[in-house]
Formats: sequence, C-alpha cells, structure tokens
Amino acid sequence: MNSINIEFFGYFAAILTTAAFLPQLIKTLKTKKADDVSLVTLIMFISGVFSWIIYGYEISSLPILLANIITFILNLLILISKIFYSKKY
Amino acid sequence: MNSINIEFFGYFAAILTTAAFLPQLIKTLKTKKADDVSLVTLIMFISGVFSWIIYGYEISSLPILLANIITFILNLLILISKIFYSKKY
Repeated sequence: MNSINIEFFGYFAAILTTAAFLPQLIKTLKTKKADDVSLVTLIMFISGVFSWIIYGYEISSLPILLANIITFILNLLILISKIFYSKKY
Repeated sequence: MNSINIEFFGYFAAILTTAAFLPQLIKTLKTKKADDVSLVTLIMFISGVFSWIIYGYEISSLPILLANIITFILNLLILISKIFYSKKY
C-alpha cells in the first residue's frame, strides 16, 4: 500500500473511532437512560483517553490530540447523562 | 517530560482504552441485555478499530496492532451479545 493510502486509513480510523460515540450520546439523551452502559467502562475509557491527550500533547501530534479531545468530551457527556438519568426514579 | 515518561503515558493510555471494554462485556453477559448500548456506536467503533488494525499493520506498529486487535475482539463480543440477547423476548 502506498503512503497516501496508509495515511487515509489512519485518518479514516481516527474519524470513525471518534464519531462513533455521538450516536451513543444521542441515544442516551433520547431514551433518558443508559443503565446497560457500564460505568466502569466509561471511567476507564475516559481516563485512558485523557492519557492519550497528554501523550499527544507531549509528542506534539495534532491528530492524536484532536481525536482524543473530541472522544473525551463525547464520553464525558455520556457519563454525565448516565449519572443524571440514573438518579431520576 | 522525559521520553520514558512520555512512553509510559502512551502505554498506560493504550492499556486503559483497551481494557475498558472488558467491564462492558462482563456487564452485558451478566445482565443478559445491552439495550441502552447504541448499535450504531458499536458498528462504527468496530469498523474504526478494524481500520486501526490495517493502519498498524501497514506502518508495522506492534502496540497499535495489539491494542486494536484486543479492542476489536472485545467490542465484537459485546455486539454479538447485544444482538443475541435482544432476540430473546
């Protein structure tokens, strides 16, 4: 594969694994519940993504920084929604 | 930050964002439901992770390959469980 195609796969992968969390956020806001979404998964994932942000900053990688900042915000909103809706009973 | 600490953050991030999906899989298998987990999110995320595997293979990055193969397997099992349990009514 030539280098342009390889880069394409990298950006395609980054966009997909970042944008993927938007449907989860929309679903959670629509259904007003996320009981089946694991709290431990969300906390571990958000901590991991935060570490990716530090890593991206330290190695000065804009793609890693950008993708992970968006992923961080989306997952933080999913976590906040989950906690907010779980307290409504 | 020195380069050893930077690498530590990279590996720490990779382990967290990979292992994070294990609690979701365990929760889904225990509760036998994942209705609140977005199907679109799972399909987009799995496709993105698959693209990361191709990218990691093409740039010969073992950490990207390893982390994404495990993430791929875990999320595929979550997707299969979700579909399997949603059909039991």
